[in-house]
Amino acid sequence: MRQTIAWNDGAIELIDQTRLPEALVMLRIETVGDLVAAIQRLAIRGAPALGVAGGYGVALAARLHDPASDRAGFDNAVRLLRAARPTAVNLSAMVDRVSAIAETGAALEEAHRIRDEEIAASHAMGNRGADLVTELVGERPARVMTICNTGGLATVERGTALAVVHTLHERGSLAEALPLETRPLLQGSRLTTWELDRIGAPHRLIVDSAGPFLLTRGAADAVLIGADRIAANGDTANKIGSLSLALAAAHARVPFIVVAPESTVDPATPSGAEIEIEDRGRDEVISICGMALAPPDTEAINPAFDVTPAALITAIVTDRRTIRLDLGDSPPAG
Amino acid sequence: MRQTIAWNDGAIELIDQTRLPEALVMLRIETVGDLVAAIQRLAIRGAPALGVAGGYGVALAARLHDPASDRAGFDNAVRLLRAARPTAVNLSAMVDRVSAIAETGAALEEAHRIRDEEIAASHAMGNRGADLVTELVGERPARVMTICNTGGLATVERGTALAVVHTLHERGSLAEALPLETRPLLQGSRLTTWELDRIGAPHRLIVDSAGPFLLTRGAADAVLIGADRIAANGDTANKIGSLSLALAAAHARVPFIVVAPESTVDPATPSGAEIEIEDRGRDEVISICGMALAPPDTEAINPAFDVTPAALITAIVTDRRTIRLDLGDSPPAG
Repeated sequence: MRQTIAWNDGAIELIDQTRLPEALVMLRIETVGDLVAAIQRLAIRGAPALGVAGGYGVALAARLHDPASDRAGFDNAVRLLRAARPTAVNLSAMVDRVSAIAETGAALEEAHRIRDEEIAASHAMGNRGADLVTELVGERPARVMTICNTGGLATVERGTALAVVHTLHERGSLAEALPLETRPLLQGSRLTTWELDRIGAPHRLIVDSAGPFLLTRGAADAVLIGADRIAANGDTANKIGSLSLALAAAHARVPFIVVAPESTVDPATPSGAEIEIEDRGRDEVISICGMALAPPDTEAINPAFDVTPAALITAIVTDRRTIRLDLGDSPPAG
Repeated sequence: MRQTIAWNDGAIELIDQTRLPEALVMLRIETVGDLVAAIQRLAIRGAPALGVAGGYGVALAARLHDPASDRAGFDNAVRLLRAARPTAVNLSAMVDRVSAIAETGAALEEAHRIRDEEIAASHAMGNRGADLVTELVGERPARVMTICNTGGLATVERGTALAVVHTLHERGSLAEALPLETRPLLQGSRLTTWELDRIGAPHRLIVDSAGPFLLTRGAADAVLIGADRIAANGDTANKIGSLSLALAAAHARVPFIVVAPESTVDPATPSGAEIEIEDRGRDEVISICGMALAPPDTEAINPAFDVTPAALITAIVTDRRTIRLDLGDSPPAG
């Protein structure tokens, strides 16, 4: 199966996510400028995937501008790449990691190492999460609800919360996945359904507000979400809609599980109260793919994510540990 | 201001809601066949509005086929009208009410009476609901969240939950309305924003899953919803998404108020557990206005409404009474 991003014969190849689900189009990227453009128009997205893109981008820069002989050209390319999406911490972190050793000539090896670490982390999260779901749900195949896209398209392969779905499916332990469409940008309908199709996992799509109701009617055995940031106390920022699932899961006594790499835990943020919520503006709400949904002057509030308090979270699964908040485990940091 | 439906010079005039919010187009309907077609393609919708349409439809039938001399023609027209949307109980009930007296020649007067009753009920709900919001929130202008379209477009004028918003605005007691877009059919973005625009009420649109989060962040002082059916014990069936607002409102200690005409209370339904949930099929979920949102073979679950337990409801406001469930008032029936 195609990986989201790969190095092939001196260039970066990646899936153009803006063309999904209509078409699977691979982009071949041979210059840093083309990579920056691809990142900016969201042809590739998801924090781990952007980290890998940053690493390979530096390898590309080093190939075109040998840092030993053309330092100015190399530094300029790195600067452009680092600024492609300023809020994506993985991108700048991995650009820094690879450019720090670029002069040794080992940039490509370091970029491959980042990719391998991401793949290993996804597999570890998938295994740990699937073990936990089976422990909580029992041996019968599980019905799991999820939001946004947390699959291979957000990483290199497999993903975070969706890696758990993938692993359950491979083990014959998945009855059905219920992805939420995830307004406003519809990552659930556009990307998650496409990934579930590809691996042959049974699934039915639902609108976001149907998720809480279906939980109260017993339609799912567990909720699995990713995370944008996990505060020291376990409060979790994730895609808007996660909190409403957590409230309904608590009401219906359905396990609510956060799946994210260890790097998502932020010890510098004591609790969710300190997490600033980005508002992405009204255009995403009042129109869809350029089609108007509301009168043109309509104002909107458009929070990109929400914060689920640790008290509503059953467990946090990372690539290195499983934290059972429901059983009184210590919070992830501090 | 235009009413949603009116009798004018021997014909029915109604707002074509399929053209909103792009254009305000009035349809002039002179035959029962045209009215049936308008109902079936949702040019007019909302239970109270359909009841008035049914009444005027019988008046139209009686005009074209005098029931005293052309009983067969009249009965046939009534049958077509009654079956235009079989699940809309108001439509058949009001068709029956007017056709029962059509032979006396007073069909049009009876249809006008139905219209007048609906208008009076909307005003009564608006006043009662606004009184309650002010009692709960205090004298400062209120910020209220709502879902779906419960305004004049669903009735003749003003509506149910949105009548309360309208009345608060007239009294200078509305700071802001926060309508949810209401996937899958987007009645909130398409119709509610348009109605709020028309009356000059300040508002900002939000995606459905942002509602619960914004309640936990203190963005609204009350939630106002309509109802499709209220069980004897107060459990309330309403548009999908209502339950997730109720769960978040309870979590954030924000009043959650149901506003619906007395006729919505169904003593024959003991509780929400007996309410069957209609699934409207996958097309509404996987596409929007004909544009694909997901891979074409994607299956979906599409519950049209959900059930909010009475324990999560602060009060039920009808045109005749205010039931404070939070203060231990008896449930609406039984």
